[in-house]
Amino acid sequence: MEATRKILELNAFDMNAAEGLAPEVTSLVRRRKETFGPTSMLFYERPLNLVRGEGVWLHDADGTRYLDAYNNVPSVGHCHPRVVEAVSRQIGTLNTHTRYLYSNIYTYAERLLGTMPGPISNIVFTCTGSESADFAIRVSRAVTGGTGFIVTDNAYHGNTSAVTEISPSSASAEPRPPYVFIVPAPDTYRERPDAVGARFAKDVREAIAKMNAAGIRLAAFIADSIFSSDGVFPGEPGFLAETIAAVHQAGGVYVADEVQPGFGRTGEKMWGFDRHGLVPDMVVMGKPMGNGFPMGGVAIKPNLLEAFGSKSGYFNTFGGNPVAAAAGLAVLDVLEEEGLQQNSFETGAYLRSELRISGADSVGDVRGTGLYIGVDIVTDKQSREPDRDTAEKIVNGMRDRNILIGIAGRHGNVLKIRPPLCFNREHADIFLDGFKGALADAS
Amino acid sequence: MEATRKILELNAFDMNAAEGLAPEVTSLVRRRKETFGPTSMLFYERPLNLVRGEGVWLHDADGTRYLDAYNNVPSVGHCHPRVVEAVSRQIGTLNTHTRYLYSNIYTYAERLLGTMPGPISNIVFTCTGSESADFAIRVSRAVTGGTGFIVTDNAYHGNTSAVTEISPSSASAEPRPPYVFIVPAPDTYRERPDAVGARFAKDVREAIAKMNAAGIRLAAFIADSIFSSDGVFPGEPGFLAETIAAVHQAGGVYVADEVQPGFGRTGEKMWGFDRHGLVPDMVVMGKPMGNGFPMGGVAIKPNLLEAFGSKSGYFNTFGGNPVAAAAGLAVLDVLEEEGLQQNSFETGAYLRSELRISGADSVGDVRGTGLYIGVDIVTDKQSREPDRDTAEKIVNGMRDRNILIGIAGRHGNVLKIRPPLCFNREHADIFLDGFKGALADAS
Repeated sequence: MEATRKILELNAFDMNAAEGLAPEVTSLVRRRKETFGPTSMLFYERPLNLVRGEGVWLHDADGTRYLDAYNNVPSVGHCHPRVVEAVSRQIGTLNTHTRYLYSNIYTYAERLLGTMPGPISNIVFTCTGSESADFAIRVSRAVTGGTGFIVTDNAYHGNTSAVTEISPSSASAEPRPPYVFIVPAPDTYRERPDAVGARFAKDVREAIAKMNAAGIRLAAFIADSIFSSDGVFPGEPGFLAETIAAVHQAGGVYVADEVQPGFGRTGEKMWGFDRHGLVPDMVVMGKPMGNGFPMGGVAIKPNLLEAFGSKSGYFNTFGGNPVAAAAGLAVLDVLEEEGLQQNSFETGAYLRSELRISGADSVGDVRGTGLYIGVDIVTDKQSREPDRDTAEKIVNGMRDRNILIGIAGRHGNVLKIRPPLCFNREHADIFLDGFKGALADAS
Repeated sequence: MEATRKILELNAFDMNAAEGLAPEVTSLVRRRKETFGPTSMLFYERPLNLVRGEGVWLHDADGTRYLDAYNNVPSVGHCHPRVVEAVSRQIGTLNTHTRYLYSNIYTYAERLLGTMPGPISNIVFTCTGSESADFAIRVSRAVTGGTGFIVTDNAYHGNTSAVTEISPSSASAEPRPPYVFIVPAPDTYRERPDAVGARFAKDVREAIAKMNAAGIRLAAFIADSIFSSDGVFPGEPGFLAETIAAVHQAGGVYVADEVQPGFGRTGEKMWGFDRHGLVPDMVVMGKPMGNGFPMGGVAIKPNLLEAFGSKSGYFNTFGGNPVAAAAGLAVLDVLEEEGLQQNSFETGAYLRSELRISGADSVGDVRGTGLYIGVDIVTDKQSREPDRDTAEKIVNGMRDRNILIGIAGRHGNVLKIRPPLCFNREHADIFLDGFKGALADAS
């Protein structure tokens, strides 16, 4: 618990440290504390006071612009005009719910499902990734008759009561329920990369055996295929196949959490599970789906949805409304027309290769796929000892250079770099220049 | 279970009956079935194919307009220009999350909390009423150390795993958990109205005693103060006071679910709990908050939020984003400037008195507060026997007259009338004219 708490507080502003800040920022911090309470977390030693966003740029009230290499929600770029136009037009025309017919939601559903493997041909719309993961939990239990879940040891899948239970990275006053089993994430830096698939599958099989020995049947294995909150471990394409076979053999379902890797982020494919040649039973979607318009969804095999729906009801008031459909369609249009998946592939590869060149002893590992990059900060390359303090210094040093990144991993030492997908080579060069300075200052 | 299933399917379109419909509707139904699956529920014997909304009107693809007396999400009117303008402007300017500072979310939080009783001075933003209720469950458990919940027998509080457990009206394959206790809703039509408060409090005290006898401590009593899904029972102002005193005495918290009664809907007050002179420990908000922009929130006493937040993390990616703040502020502006609470009070009172005049034997009871009205349809006034078939006929008869209403109640016999709050006397007269015809045809 203690370790988890500390990690949640990484890169957090100290709410009692407002005095050294600009008067406007101090005033906002005070108003925040009064309304949100003192435990609501704010980023950075010196918090950002934002007023405008555009593409990969965020602007603060003082006119400073920040290169955004952190935010994956505005995936096609902050305030993309196509999305803005689509939302503005639709919200002024019709905004209701899916108990009436309107054509654009079916058009969107068809387009989105068209990017999935054939067996995944139904969809349930929600408003957030958390609601999506929660629905996937309900369905997993209903269709398998099992209650057990297997997740990685620093996974994060969302914030509802049920999803918090399967999110070991979340601080929670409650102990982990007896039906949630954890396995160590595939740490391709500290394990042998070519053996990690077999080790992971072995751990999952052992978890299933332990679970069954305790009289609990497997409902689902759920993972985000790049293991982002575990510290960004995309691994070799295909390494998850043995694990998923074991899950299916035990009667469980495989839920792919695509909130992080989905919508072209990995560069290689539209979906993270596609990198592994897998067909999930359910696909959980959220964050980048509407470029910031609150929307989520679960793509699902029809037999599972029908088995669930024949006994249980589910209706989501805002889910799949006409404005969400318009936002979602605009995102798919922009992804295609601007070739953002390809850009993610190319710019991501360029960034990783340049980051590796730095050669600093604290840069232990640079990994990722597309524009989801983890930089494992260590005390030295020999010991590979996680170095959280230096990682935090780098994050704040980057912020001082007007570049935004974050932190991931169970040791809180992995720099998390996941800019909007329109982040190009020019932006990468600005980033690398800042990184050099922040790294030098932190070392 | 069977009874619940039937009620969920009330006013549902038969997905296999598409053949008699217009070709365009048939095609949409087919596309819906292929993408959403056959268990996704659509309203009406003849579903609506909508293309446009404005004020209290919805328009279908054939150019027919429908008087909307059902939808409480677009509470200040479909596509209200002030909300449309606010959302369109903000979504093109900045849309990020609450780990950065931006002033409009604090302005909104201050304005919203300013409408609450003094002790409720903190807020946590979410995206939906379901997320809000789910968060309230987490907090209730964390701060009381209890796990037990008390709800009414046909309550609906949302769709997550945890919230479904405390929503007896939801069809669910899973049995009710041992820590959820139900009490009969305050049926002011079939009980003595002046005795319902004492009876309800007695049942809640007994539920607490049973719970304690089973070794379970009370976490929370949660109710929507107009008991909407139970069949619309606002009751006499103040009748809940004895119940809440018992809840507090047992160490539980009182969660007011204001998704239905909040934001001026009751006409008498801004909030449903205000009608009873109560100060809840938490206030759950959703549906009308952003007039259709997906947003929700939990207003909370600061000591409870701090007790929760000191041990548990909560972050909602889309919750409280700048666009939600803009939508929420516009809704508060319109409510005030257009005097919608007062209109709700006056038009609601007018509608109820005119509905009572009909004198039909099947109109057993007309009740409600403001523009939340329930009409209890019975076989005859003597027996007060719920008559679901006639209620369904009236709903479809109203739809044939281009007027939209719904159904509530554990017997599925209560007409649910809750139009946008800009529904005025002229609209009420159109409504009453249609009602006369639909009632005559159904009788």
